[in-house]
Formats: sequence, C-alpha cells, structure tokens
Amino acid sequence: MNHQISLTAYLAAFVAELVQTGIKDVVVSPGSRSTPMAMVMAEHPEINIHIHVDERSAAFFALGIARVTNKPVAILCTSGTAAANYFPAIIEARYSRVPLLVLTADRPHELREVGAPQAIDQIHLYGQHVKWFADMALPESSTEIIRYARTVGARAAAIASQAPAGPVHLNFPFREPLIPKLDEDIFQLEERPMGYVKVRNGELTIHDDELKEISLKLNGYTNGIIVCGNIADDRFAQAVTDLSEMLKFPILADPLSQLRSGQHHLENIVETYDTFLRNEDAKVYLKPDVILRFGAMPLSKALTIFLKENHQAEQFVIDGAGGWRDPSSLSTEMIYCNETFFCEKVVAFSETRTSGEFLEKWLAVNDLTKANMALIKDSQQLSEGRLFYELADMLPKGATLFVGNSMPIRDLDSFFHNNSKSIKVIANRGANGIDGTVSTAIGASLYSQPLYLVLGDLTFFHDLNGLIASKLYNIDVKIIVVNNNGGGIFSFLPQSEHPKHFELLFGTPLNLDFEHAVKMFNGNFTRIKDWEHLQELMNLSTEVKGLNVYEVVTNRESNLVEHRDFWRIVSEEISNFVKGAD
Amino acid sequence: MNHQISLTAYLAAFVAELVQTGIKDVVVSPGSRSTPMAMVMAEHPEINIHIHVDERSAAFFALGIARVTNKPVAILCTSGTAAANYFPAIIEARYSRVPLLVLTADRPHELREVGAPQAIDQIHLYGQHVKWFADMALPESSTEIIRYARTVGARAAAIASQAPAGPVHLNFPFREPLIPKLDEDIFQLEERPMGYVKVRNGELTIHDDELKEISLKLNGYTNGIIVCGNIADDRFAQAVTDLSEMLKFPILADPLSQLRSGQHHLENIVETYDTFLRNEDAKVYLKPDVILRFGAMPLSKALTIFLKENHQAEQFVIDGAGGWRDPSSLSTEMIYCNETFFCEKVVAFSETRTSGEFLEKWLAVNDLTKANMALIKDSQQLSEGRLFYELADMLPKGATLFVGNSMPIRDLDSFFHNNSKSIKVIANRGANGIDGTVSTAIGASLYSQPLYLVLGDLTFFHDLNGLIASKLYNIDVKIIVVNNNGGGIFSFLPQSEHPKHFELLFGTPLNLDFEHAVKMFNGNFTRIKDWEHLQELMNLSTEVKGLNVYEVVTNRESNLVEHRDFWRIVSEEISNFVKGAD
Repeated sequence: MNHQISLTAYLAAFVAELVQTGIKDVVVSPGSRSTPMAMVMAEHPEINIHIHVDERSAAFFALGIARVTNKPVAILCTSGTAAANYFPAIIEARYSRVPLLVLTADRPHELREVGAPQAIDQIHLYGQHVKWFADMALPESSTEIIRYARTVGARAAAIASQAPAGPVHLNFPFREPLIPKLDEDIFQLEERPMGYVKVRNGELTIHDDELKEISLKLNGYTNGIIVCGNIADDRFAQAVTDLSEMLKFPILADPLSQLRSGQHHLENIVETYDTFLRNEDAKVYLKPDVILRFGAMPLSKALTIFLKENHQAEQFVIDGAGGWRDPSSLSTEMIYCNETFFCEKVVAFSETRTSGEFLEKWLAVNDLTKANMALIKDSQQLSEGRLFYELADMLPKGATLFVGNSMPIRDLDSFFHNNSKSIKVIANRGANGIDGTVSTAIGASLYSQPLYLVLGDLTFFHDLNGLIASKLYNIDVKIIVVNNNGGGIFSFLPQSEHPKHFELLFGTPLNLDFEHAVKMFNGNFTRIKDWEHLQELMNLSTEVKGLNVYEVVTNRESNLVEHRDFWRIVSEEISNFVKGAD
Repeated sequence: MNHQISLTAYLAAFVAELVQTGIKDVVVSPGSRSTPMAMVMAEHPEINIHIHVDERSAAFFALGIARVTNKPVAILCTSGTAAANYFPAIIEARYSRVPLLVLTADRPHELREVGAPQAIDQIHLYGQHVKWFADMALPESSTEIIRYARTVGARAAAIASQAPAGPVHLNFPFREPLIPKLDEDIFQLEERPMGYVKVRNGELTIHDDELKEISLKLNGYTNGIIVCGNIADDRFAQAVTDLSEMLKFPILADPLSQLRSGQHHLENIVETYDTFLRNEDAKVYLKPDVILRFGAMPLSKALTIFLKENHQAEQFVIDGAGGWRDPSSLSTEMIYCNETFFCEKVVAFSETRTSGEFLEKWLAVNDLTKANMALIKDSQQLSEGRLFYELADMLPKGATLFVGNSMPIRDLDSFFHNNSKSIKVIANRGANGIDGTVSTAIGASLYSQPLYLVLGDLTFFHDLNGLIASKLYNIDVKIIVVNNNGGGIFSFLPQSEHPKHFELLFGTPLNLDFEHAVKMFNGNFTRIKDWEHLQELMNLSTEVKGLNVYEVVTNRESNLVEHRDFWRIVSEEISNFVKGAD
C-alpha cells in the first residue's frame, strides 16, 4: 500500500505540474507498464487524452497539435519498441522546432539488460535528437522527491518550449503493482506550500549599438533582397513587410513563411522565384549585393542555387533560436536575435526610402511570371500544376493547408500565389520525410479548422494508419490525394535518365485502390472526374464532416512534360523581357 | 566523371563483398540520396531487391527473412526520418539476436547540421542498439579506399552474424551527382588481387576440465529440471533431449524453443507448466534442487514465479552468446559456452541413469493437465483457447507458425502441445512489441513455406501496411486474425479491476472491418463462422495462393471467463492428484 501511495503522489505531482505549464493534450498509446501515468492523467479534469494504438502515428498526431498551438504536447507509451516508434516524429520535431514532451514507461533498474520481457535500453534512446533526457527517480512520496517530480515537469515543458523548441524525453521506471490509488482528490497536494514553478523563457536579442551598426550597413545598399523561410511567429509578417517597405528590398517568401497569404502588405512579396530564377538572364538582371535571411532554408532549389551563385553578396542570417541554418556556408553575419525584434529595430534605425529601382525589377519579373501561369491553368486534364495553382482560389478564407513532402510542397512553392485569404500553410519540413503526414495533419485539425491536406499517394500510404484518429475522435479533415501511382518526384531527377532500374527502384507503383482503406476508417471517398467536379466538391467541403478523401489521379509522364513545357515557355518570355529592359 | 568513377568503384567493391559474405536479400525503400547504392545493388545479378515504401515495415520484413535464414539481410534507405523508421526492427533484432545490416544514405559532411534539406544527424543514430556503427568514408577509388570499402562490408556482415547476432549500421555520405556509371561489368575488380576477406566466426566453448566439474555436480542431483527458451540452433533439440534422457531431468520447453514439435524424442518434454505451475500443491510436489537454463527467458509468468520461488536451487545459465539473461538474479553459474556443445559434452561426461522418480512426477502432472485440456476443446463458440489448442492438429506438417505478441503467444504457450509435425514456431520475442508483426511474418514466408500467422486485431492494425509485400511480390501467407476488438490481454491484468478508465485506456476498441484493407491488398478475406468452417478452410489452406486472411471473432469477456474456469478446474484436479500421490 505504501508503494501505491508513493506511486500516486509522485505522479499526481508531476501531472499537476504539467497541467500548470499549459499542457492539456496527451496522446496515449495503450500498454501495461505505462498504466500508472495513464490512469493518473485520465483522472485529471483538464487533460484531454487521445488514444492512438500505433505509436508512430501517435507521435506525429501530437506533433500536429503542437505545430498549430505552439505549445508542448505530451506523448505516453509503454516500454520496448513502442518507444522506438516515436523516433521519426521526434526527429521531425527537433528539426522543425516543435515542442514535444516524450514520456516513456520503463522497467525498474533491476530488470534492465537482464533479459526481462519487453525491456530494452531506454537510456538516451533518442540520442542527440532530444533537447533533454532524464531517467526519472523511482516513485517516492518524500517531500524532496515530490518537489523533484514537479520541478522536472515544469523544467521539461520549459525546455521543450525554449527557442529552438523541440522534444524532451523523460523515462519513468515503474515497479509492479502498477495501479495508482485514485479514490480521493489526488491533485490536492499539500507538499507544495510555495506553489508551482513558473518558468519565464527569455528571448535572444542583441544590443541597440549592434543593431544601429547593422542598420547603417543595410541602408548603404540599394540592391538587397529579403529571403524568408518557415517561421512560427504571428508578429513576424507585419515586422518584415515594414522592413521591406523601409529598405525597398523585395521579400522572397517561401510558402511556409506565412507571408504569401494574409492581411499584411503583400506588395513587395515575390512568390514565383522558383520559376524565374531558373533563367540565366533573370539571375543577372536581379543580382543582389546584400541578402537578409529569416527562418528555415527555403525549399526552392532554384533559389538555393541563386544564393550560392551570389556568394559575393553580404549575407545576414537572423536566427532567434541560435541555430546554424546555412548549408552553403554563405553567411557573413550570423545574428542571434529574435526575428521580429530585429526587424522592428532596424526599421526604427533606418530612413524611409521613397523609391527602389531594384525592388521594381524583381516585382516586374515576378508579375511577368505570374501572367504566364495561365499556361498551367489551361490544362484540361487533371494535372498537378493546375491543382496547386487553383488551391488558393478553391480554399475557404482562414483555412489551414497541410502539404505533403516530395512533389506537393514543390508544386505549392511554384504555383501558390499571394492572396489575402489568410490561408495558413504547414508541412513537416524539419526533416522533409513522407512519414507521419496524415497523422500530423489530423492532429493539426484538432485546433485549426477547416484543414485541407494535399499529399501524394506514397505519402498517403506511408501513414494510412493515421486515418484512424479521424474515425475514433470524429475529427473533420479533407484530404486531396494526388495519385500518380508512385514516386513522381524521381521523374524530375537525373535517375529518370537511366531507365534500366528506374521503375523498380524509383517509380515504385503500388496500384492501390485507396477507397477500401478510406471506407474502413468510415470516410467518404471521391475520385475526382474533372476540374468542375473538384471545384464543386471544394465548394461543398466546408459543410462536410469527418474524413473526406478526394483522389486526383494524374500521370507521371504527362506531369513532367507539363512542367518542362511551362518552364521553357516562361523562360523565353523572361529572357525577352530582360533583354528589352536592359 | 572522376566523381562518378570513384562512386561506382567504391560501391561495387562494397556490394561485391556483401554478396561474397552470403548476403543476397536487400530490402530497399525508395529515396534519392540512396540512389547510387540502390543502383549498384540492382546491377548485381546475385542480389534480390525487395522494394518496401514504408521503412518501418521494410526493416521488419528484412528481420523476418533473417530470422528464418539465420543470415544477415541488408536494408537500405535514404537520409532523414526514413532511417528513424528502422529503429523498432533494429531493437527487436538486437534483443532477439537476429543479424541485420542497416545501410543509410547521408548528406556529405559539409551539409550536416547546417539546415540542409532532409539532413538529420545520423551519427550513432541507433545508439547502443547496434553492435557496430561506422560513418563511411566518402567514395574514392584509390586502392586503399577500395580495400577499405570491401573490408568494411566483410566485417559488418561478420559482426552481424557473430553470437549474439544483431544489427550493424553503416552510414554512407554521398555527394551529388548521385548516378553511378553502369556501362560495363562493374564487379570485375582488379584492385583485389588477393581475393575477398573470409571471416571465420568462432564459438564460445569452455574447457573440458570445467565441463567435467559441471557434469560431476549435475550427476550429484536427482531433482533437476531443464528450462529451454527461444534458441536458434537446429542441432540443439537432439543434444538437449539426449542430456535430459541421460540425467532424467524433464525439459520445460517454451514454444519458441522448437522442442515441442519435431522428430526428436518428445518423451521428457513438459509443455503445460504454464497451467499447472499456477497450483501451489504442484509447486511443492515438483520442487527442484538444480535448474539448467538454455535460451531466452521463457514467456510463462507462472514459470518465472516458480523459478523465483526456487532461489534455493543451484541454477546454471548456459549462453553461447555471452549475454546476461537472468532477470531475477538467480543464476549460480553463468556459463558462456555454445549450448549444443555444452549438452554433448555433459552427456559424454555423465553416466546413464536407468530411472528417474522426479522426472516421472513432472510427466504425470503434465499428462494430467493435458487430459483436462478437453475442457478447452469443448468450447462450442469460437474461442481463443480452443483455437490455439487445435492449431497443432490443423496445421500441415513442416508449417511455420508465426505468433503475434500479447495474448496469442501466451495462449500458444498454454495450449500448443507436443507433436511430431515439425512445426517451426516463431515470434518477435526480443522486445515483445506488437509492431511490425505482419511484415516480419511475410518476410519469413519468403523462405519458410507454408507460413501461418496468428495475431490479434491491434497487432494486425499496427502493421497493416506490411500486407503490401504480399501483394507486390505475390508472397503466400495465411493470416488468422483473432479479433476481440481491442486489447484483450488487459482483461487478465489488474487494470481490469478499475473500470473507471478501463475501456478508454486499455480496452481501446477500434471497430474496424479489416475486409476493406485486405481487399485493397488483393487478398482473400473470410470471417470464420464456426469450428467446422475453420477446419475446412485450414484443410484447403495449403492449396491457396497469395494473401489469405481468416478472421476469428472472439469476445474479451467470455474469453476471460473461459480461461479462469479452465485454470480453476484443472487446478482442483491437480491438487487432488498431488494429495493422492503423496
């Protein structure tokens, strides 16, 4: 009985502390060793428990919630390989800077590495990929250990949230019997007369003297560009567009920068660079002397090459989380300062420019490229290019658009244009995997409605299990599956020029009729017939409930031809324009 | 071009060396960074490439092949979270001592931890869970580096195979362009005039003097038992049954010991101990003075408790792989010696006993328990107990029986009896996870036919994606899904006495109609109506091809009642017998 009292007091203190830090969602995968934690959590009135049998999907589901709420979400599983299934989502959380609290149950010390059942070495299980690991003390109810349990809870949540946000792992050894004592109000804890620990997380900023010096430098340039990748700060759009207006530098906005869609000023935002920076004349015409970079590396390869070619330019990389996002070793100043703070300060220390010839050049090329996008819109048959071109028009205001990796995110980059509909665009771009996409999107749907997920068939297949969350919890999600029956991206890569092993190794057609799977998860499945059909269903989509899957069947070969034709024609137009302008 | 020549020569040398070590199966998950290795492997005439989009399933599929062939199988994936999806199978391979060669593609050094796309820290990605990790040199074609590549290949395969067999991880950094030069016979390698490295892996043995000393000790005891868990050595059955016959010690044979079914002597093999060791009278009646343990810890909890209660007994743990399989700290001698060698030597150094009263006692209780199993067979409705009781009769000779974790393996332990049908029983008992079961079984089916997989509904759901291997490669597999709509095992655990959160946290019904999923993977699905129906389908099962799923719907509550009734009635019989015998 003493064991049971200690177990309960220890876990109640820990769980109460988690709730105090703001954690309210916990994704639990069923298991035996994790019983005491699961039961104490289920007892807390402010915790929402989501059950997910497949731990891989469970962790991505939690990642989806954390991604849209910017708050740590806890995941709980039993000992053994269950915990290993969390690994992909943990790595994604680390590189995409999403807070996650990983709680694993373990055997006690005497049952470790001695052949006990379902016991694996869980110490530092995720290696360097978590920000903090603690192997917890065995449950005790002494004042010291209760204080310890509560402090670790507060600290773990704080570390997960601290910039760069990321995953934290706590490993809990539990002895049998595993049942806590729940017959009274276990969260009334007398052992904490001084209240809970509140952690105040600071932000990185640099001194005004340094910011003045940087502002002076920037004001000395006329030919500058601002490059924005994925960034999770609602205040940033206003700050960076103000900076752009002040300096007359165009903003090259990655779709995940959240700058292409919203109520902020869109005038200086360039979004078709992935197309026009494939053209050599444009690259000469638009050569910058200074580059400001915010957020993750943008996904456009054309832009990455352009940046590399402009190694002569001074390049400022601003990172409020103190990382090192510079794969081509191009930065001349690495500035560890909150990005919004940086923009506001530089604006304050700069003088307004009334005109910007360099900015006008970028905007002219961008406009020309957009004008030529009509080519893509003319496609009569279902095509990937037109789908992404039409998305902004088809989605309702305030929608969340979750985009799968591989081709969908690249097509989105090419064809998703500036609009004022405040469409939030998200993706798993920490490690760019195709795994866990369905679960992340459904997790995000819990707090961000309506949500549309657009992904390829291999990505859909990889996390089919994730659909069960929609069934079990009646979560509304609309999924557009772009089904080109295999790995469409490889047709764009040099592999495609070597037909001998191509279909075996890269094409990998699965020939699956997803209607069966969608039915199993109680969803509605519709195979799209033509553009009118898609438009009609998208119009109705705000009304439908539960899981709705729309399959758009495309063809890998004709998709390649469409893209190449488009790039060739636009490129000719751009060359003509640039030669005329010079 | 120099780059391409180096890349090709380096990989050809490595791949040729793998083939020389006996590796012929490679499971490849499509990706870009892994292109050069995939293309060179596809070029080798002796390599079978199996494509698996989901890396988690891919690794378990490879594990299944390795489990039945006892040879290392290679798995290959691209950089990023793809590699993290391998983690569950790697951990299972480690703890169940199965050789696996994990090949991951990586970005080159200048693109690591600098925000490059799809780049994660892959150095020591699997921590302590692999036997060896090497971050490979960048491809070069100097004689030294070619020798290095081939040597690492030979060494990696040898380490994976060395007792205890397990996973080895090689991480290959590749620079673009990623296409090898395949226009001539790349495997004719002049750089190796001295031929390949052949590694001769030794076995642990102890000296004859020590074996004589141990034999003398053992011959001093009359009340001894031999406990055999999972062991992968075809010669062991003969050796240990000879030893048992010599010493007149009964063999308590775990279902994974491969001792319950075969052409060896079955007379001294006790298989119902999980039932009768729940009875206190039997435990007193059968008290041993010496215990010999071989293989992994047996799965029976009743046996584990019995061993703990007999801490007074001298306990010899024989492990040919030098591990420490002793969760209750009971061993008095830990003997690092090949198990077959040990048995043969002790037999040679012992004198034959003509009778054994202690052995007869064990066999009598075992016979009595078996006689009472008729109770289970009488069940008219579909039930889990009777299913496992009937399995040995229903399966064809020489079949492989793959058993899912959680309840199925426990029911098998209780109800699968001695027979001469040479049924090979396998399961993922390294870490006892429910993950990857479908894939492991289908991988095993490639080399072990006919194969029957019996598993629960949650386990089936966890690895539904694994079914695609049967579809893509026309692999024959018969799957019996015991569908009790949730976590049946928890009804047997103390959690079930706390109804408040039970269905939420432990019951976890998914209410899935698996017929949809099976159809998607081109399989045949049959819901079993009654025992005659099942018998009929099992009779026909040797004729059917491809994926065949038989669903046996059971009920968690009545299952619990059936088991409890059975244990109670048998226990009464045993007590009566023991009291009569004393």
